[in-house]
Amino acid sequence: MVEDSLQRFFADAKLRAVAVNATYLGLWEALERATAGGKRSRPRLVMLAYRQLGGTDFSSAAELAASYELLHSALLIHDDVIDRDFVRRGIPNVSGHYRSRALRAGEPPAAADHAGVSAGVLAGDLALSSAYRLLRSIEAPASVRQRLNDILDDAIFSSVGGEVLDIEFSRTPDMPSLEDITRTAHQKTSVYSFEAPLQAGAILAAAPEPVVTALTAFGRYAGIAYQIADDVLGVFGNESRTGKTSWGDLREGKRTALLSYAATRPEWTRIATLVGSQDMTAADAEYVRSVLVSCGAKNYAITLATENALLAVMHLESDGVPDALRRTLERMLFSVISDLSSR
Amino acid sequence: MVEDSLQRFFADAKLRAVAVNATYLGLWEALERATAGGKRSRPRLVMLAYRQLGGTDFSSAAELAASYELLHSALLIHDDVIDRDFVRRGIPNVSGHYRSRALRAGEPPAAADHAGVSAGVLAGDLALSSAYRLLRSIEAPASVRQRLNDILDDAIFSSVGGEVLDIEFSRTPDMPSLEDITRTAHQKTSVYSFEAPLQAGAILAAAPEPVVTALTAFGRYAGIAYQIADDVLGVFGNESRTGKTSWGDLREGKRTALLSYAATRPEWTRIATLVGSQDMTAADAEYVRSVLVSCGAKNYAITLATENALLAVMHLESDGVPDALRRTLERMLFSVISDLSSR
Repeated sequence: MVEDSLQRFFADAKLRAVAVNATYLGLWEALERATAGGKRSRPRLVMLAYRQLGGTDFSSAAELAASYELLHSALLIHDDVIDRDFVRRGIPNVSGHYRSRALRAGEPPAAADHAGVSAGVLAGDLALSSAYRLLRSIEAPASVRQRLNDILDDAIFSSVGGEVLDIEFSRTPDMPSLEDITRTAHQKTSVYSFEAPLQAGAILAAAPEPVVTALTAFGRYAGIAYQIADDVLGVFGNESRTGKTSWGDLREGKRTALLSYAATRPEWTRIATLVGSQDMTAADAEYVRSVLVSCGAKNYAITLATENALLAVMHLESDGVPDALRRTLERMLFSVISDLSSR
Repeated sequence: MVEDSLQRFFADAKLRAVAVNATYLGLWEALERATAGGKRSRPRLVMLAYRQLGGTDFSSAAELAASYELLHSALLIHDDVIDRDFVRRGIPNVSGHYRSRALRAGEPPAAADHAGVSAGVLAGDLALSSAYRLLRSIEAPASVRQRLNDILDDAIFSSVGGEVLDIEFSRTPDMPSLEDITRTAHQKTSVYSFEAPLQAGAILAAAPEPVVTALTAFGRYAGIAYQIADDVLGVFGNESRTGKTSWGDLREGKRTALLSYAATRPEWTRIATLVGSQDMTAADAEYVRSVLVSCGAKNYAITLATENALLAVMHLESDGVPDALRRTLERMLFSVISDLSSR
């Protein structure tokens, strides 16, 4: 159903774009391709909460779910502009597509980069506006619509705040504290990826307020747990499963719970200059990994992820959260955590 | 009242931002400064239409007006990111502010540029989201709110479409046709600057449909007239009044009605290589101006602006548009046009 919503939305947008001009159609197609590659984890949370809390208007729920997918696209596309990345999920992103096109047309590299960045800025704007637009196809009482809009606003507000801090940290050589790292990841990613979709799905289903609160709290801690798990997998995971090179995060010096803990250990001096080094080799990465294990950072991060997952689940044990919903969310979360321990 | 709305909005946003982190507060302050510099022409059109069409809830109208000012900020900030401009209205823009800060902190130029661009992308996103958020403070029936949201959506849709084409034209050496130039300027600027604010103000005032239609048509042609006038002033205007150097547009080779006409004249060969040249001197600019006069381009552009202004005004002569509103809009428009003839 979510795919249908997205497809309908893009079909309509492309029709309107082509009426403006043919070049504009191309930008919408690029946005559609960028959106097609997602794993739909946010829509899945919206639909899950909605269905299990007794919602019956699945067509409205699908519009809500699609709105979070477009928000996800907007944030990824602008993130890539900020990080000057031209590839996402192994294929050219919006900027990469436009850059390649300009290069093929014989433009010099700087002009081609610029064509790419311009397209990325504009496609992200379209996606952001589309997230709001999709909310308006929802059939619901005015008070519910108002809350859904507020949740979307707050999610954007929080993500941008987290991104600002993330950029700030990446520009200072010091390793931020664990608390700063966790809070930044929460603001940048968890709010819009976990809290907001669950909250919005529950509110559209007219769930009682304590259930909405319980799901929001679940989303908060689950988001932190996922983020830490993701960081551990980014270093110790299997390339073919994560879709990233297994030392990209290390080479980039990405600020993670793993590294923040390691930076407090005496062993840190052995790897401090390797982490964040552009010339990192596979052998360097292997060495860094072994130190992250021996200094206890890996275990620490896994324990922290597990603790947050347990906290998340605890919040689901409140009155009114249906058993089936609780069990599904628990299963989703623990499949990620148990995956960690096998690394 | 619009200033009060904006001030309240930013005060609330800054409070919420500081709760996220201190760095985030800085970004909101930068957005507030960027928004403070505007001439408020879009809010003025909203308030004018609303008041003259019998609206009485000025606090809601002010929120609507503030929404268009934030949209204006969003588009300018992202436009500057795309154009790699770090200055706007003679002072550092959001990106310029962050770039200077990074330079003062001792970062290398490329890193400082990047800090600037990142802040610009994020501040524009906040402004875009804020435009939607402000619409929700409006007290109005659900159907009116729905339409106000649709108008905002369509304005963003159109602006991005115009920007896409504008970028496309700036990357090809050929001068686009007059029709292409006019249509692009309409999509990029007139829709959100003229049509949408008038339309939205009228709809919030519950004006009859024919009046909304008449104002929309006025906005369309007035926008084209203003755009051409602006282009003429950009070349022949007084620096201290326009706030731009009087040959910035010529050096940039900005695609305007003026140049599009000139490109069809035999005299064009005399100035074709000067226009768009980075090394243009004051003397070169003076020479280009004299050719634009002698080949008839200046007169042509002034006539075209005047014709569009007349068309615009004609649309106000429909039943139901109050005399006072018609006279005010006429006066606003013709003060710009008559200014042209004195150049």
